[in-house]
Amino acid sequence: MTGRSQPQRSEPRRLDARSADFEAQFAELLTAKRETAVDVNNDVAAIIADVQARGDQAVIDLTNKFDRLSLKGADDLRIPQERLDAAAANVSTETLDALKLAADRIEAFHAKQLPESMRFTDEAGVELGHRWSAVDAAGLYVPGGTAAYPSSVLMNAIPARVAGVERVVMVVPTPDGIENPLVLAAAKLAGVTEVYRIGGAQAVAALAYGTNTIAPVDKIVGPGNAYVAAAKRQVFGTVGIDMIAGPSEILVVADGENDPAWIAADLLSQAEHDPSSQSILITDNVQCADDVAQAVASQLKQLSRENTASASWHDYGAIITVPSLDDAIPLVNRLAPEHLELAVADPEPLADKVRHAGAIFLGRYTPEAVGDYVAGTNHVLPTARSARFSSGLSVLDFMKRTSLVKCDADSLGRIGPAAVALADAEGLEAHGRSVSIRLNR
Amino acid sequence: MTGRSQPQRSEPRRLDARSADFEAQFAELLTAKRETAVDVNNDVAAIIADVQARGDQAVIDLTNKFDRLSLKGADDLRIPQERLDAAAANVSTETLDALKLAADRIEAFHAKQLPESMRFTDEAGVELGHRWSAVDAAGLYVPGGTAAYPSSVLMNAIPARVAGVERVVMVVPTPDGIENPLVLAAAKLAGVTEVYRIGGAQAVAALAYGTNTIAPVDKIVGPGNAYVAAAKRQVFGTVGIDMIAGPSEILVVADGENDPAWIAADLLSQAEHDPSSQSILITDNVQCADDVAQAVASQLKQLSRENTASASWHDYGAIITVPSLDDAIPLVNRLAPEHLELAVADPEPLADKVRHAGAIFLGRYTPEAVGDYVAGTNHVLPTARSARFSSGLSVLDFMKRTSLVKCDADSLGRIGPAAVALADAEGLEAHGRSVSIRLNR
Repeated sequence: MTGRSQPQRSEPRRLDARSADFEAQFAELLTAKRETAVDVNNDVAAIIADVQARGDQAVIDLTNKFDRLSLKGADDLRIPQERLDAAAANVSTETLDALKLAADRIEAFHAKQLPESMRFTDEAGVELGHRWSAVDAAGLYVPGGTAAYPSSVLMNAIPARVAGVERVVMVVPTPDGIENPLVLAAAKLAGVTEVYRIGGAQAVAALAYGTNTIAPVDKIVGPGNAYVAAAKRQVFGTVGIDMIAGPSEILVVADGENDPAWIAADLLSQAEHDPSSQSILITDNVQCADDVAQAVASQLKQLSRENTASASWHDYGAIITVPSLDDAIPLVNRLAPEHLELAVADPEPLADKVRHAGAIFLGRYTPEAVGDYVAGTNHVLPTARSARFSSGLSVLDFMKRTSLVKCDADSLGRIGPAAVALADAEGLEAHGRSVSIRLNR
Repeated sequence: MTGRSQPQRSEPRRLDARSADFEAQFAELLTAKRETAVDVNNDVAAIIADVQARGDQAVIDLTNKFDRLSLKGADDLRIPQERLDAAAANVSTETLDALKLAADRIEAFHAKQLPESMRFTDEAGVELGHRWSAVDAAGLYVPGGTAAYPSSVLMNAIPARVAGVERVVMVVPTPDGIENPLVLAAAKLAGVTEVYRIGGAQAVAALAYGTNTIAPVDKIVGPGNAYVAAAKRQVFGTVGIDMIAGPSEILVVADGENDPAWIAADLLSQAEHDPSSQSILITDNVQCADDVAQAVASQLKQLSRENTASASWHDYGAIITVPSLDDAIPLVNRLAPEHLELAVADPEPLADKVRHAGAIFLGRYTPEAVGDYVAGTNHVLPTARSARFSSGLSVLDFMKRTSLVKCDADSLGRIGPAAVALADAEGLEAHGRSVSIRLNR
């Protein structure tokens, strides 16, 4: 393998599970800090307080300042439906058809996630259950500029609509007045009900607390920069938020029977996102490791986003060789990757052993990128090892559950005394009395 | 009604939906701040950093300092299984039986929440699905002192066990060395696998980052003081956390056919929790309003926790009269209460119109307190209007979902071109290539 003896910018770290210092190297890979956390909390708190105090005018002033606009009044905040219609009309047929295919498939998959309410009477005669319902209104943050992806609009808005959310409110900044027609077309397609040309912490504050023009929402989702992330954390509690997304990740587990160019393309598909993205290959075949490294180096040179992908691959990429693919499993579970590809002929036995991953792409013909666009599954997935405890975005994120309990005199007579005993034991007298007063009538 | 003309400490606010200033009064009730947010973030950050740096020794030092103990080594941190066994052996039969009845009912209800994994092949030939799995380890925070409730141990630990969590780790401070035998007995009953005598931010840090003695967990749940809440917020992302619980709430909707003493007992059952708790009655019957107010005043005097309940009822309690119970529904949905009682003969039609509530207790024989102990539903429920967007604790809080996607050459041929088109439109060349390289073979 040439790269190793001729270190270059595009060379990732190489780890061998059989080497003595593997555990130390792997632990370092696990804990490598991939984000520079800028502390913008004070700035964000000031912006939120301003929006709470001055409402629309604060949002207008901040938008004019940060996005270099000259909005005059609250009427200018909204991007009207005609702009969405016009954007959709101007998108090429090929792209629009692809967006529609994606939207249809995302909707079909997420419809299967709709949870069932439940009601039953148990042996004590107590009626129990729970009922799922949608939040009233959801806010979708869409970044301006290069990170504005129409696919993300679909992935965030469609689950909300499938859940039954009536108001789906999108905010998207238009720096220097530049609108992204693909984003607007996707909003139309996804059934977004209101769009505002605002961004940053001021947009999050407006969604959480409301202004005269923008009614508050109950849940805010979608990716954003450090200001948006900090604002979401600060308004959490007043509204629900989704997870704070980190740089994307792919982990490919591959045997020696793959075309190295395919695997290289997969690794680069995440590396091109961000210099802090992470692409890792685990293989039981040293030749595969070498060939993929070489294929990455060669494909990198042809990429328009070469600098980004190259930095990611060099700084955070890794190729790990293991004695057998079964040895990959504990490493997979410790990495708990956002995206896991199992590029082998029979991926199911391996998949069954994976405990922690946001999404698994099974077999040689399932590049991760199909999941970014058209598989139907959601591309908003847990990063930074949070797949250990969290899940991708789903209709459940836009719904909540109400418990239901119903006793009559008989069933309360059966379970009530135990409640009184426990209330007594806990020293909560009024709790006990609210039950005992209904017993022995 | 005498109370109104003779204002006294136990008198709550009275609102009449027919009065001209009702909307203003109700809006004020909605936004009344019930928590004094002490900013302990810097203290907490220092404690977390100390535990990350010094591990066990930091936990020992902080525990000795804050809980006035003299632990010598890491071995002293754990409360061994024999202590749990001994605690259970010393609990009265009545209390232990009540705990067991509660545990069995909680387990039975939560078992019905277990989600089903899903796998199917769609018309394009793409195999899709998702798989639910439990987190590896959960940490349960239990406060020391008066707020330590064995019922809360059951409510937090049993859903984790039902979900399939292998390690359920409880932390409970023992200030001055005093253990709570009921809490330890509940831990044994609920299948907690490890118990440590630690609390505060140091316990949360130990659970999140691990020490030599305490292996890290993936999810931390359970109530705590301002330090615990701040610590949970700060470690969020490294681990999952449950919601930050606020003071408890009850909203009773009652017609004129109730025994006022029953309704008064229900209102007091939450008022006795905390001076910041909130108990509200909505009724279509002015006589009921007056009678319940009087019954509360009279029952208050007999309560051991009179001061707490009286402060809560006076400062945050409310009695609202409405023309008809249908007029109560919009108010219920705006309040989005943690606990809602529908004390009417036929509660179902009203319940069907409720959009936002943590739990609904249906009919005259279902006091909220049965839900605190023995109904089987969870008593960890969303407070402070967060029922608009969040749910009570459930097995889902201890599980996560992995998406599954599997294409073959044919199905990739069907959906892949759309992915390439979208990747092109988004300027993500490597994404497109990872798909196109597999097409046309």
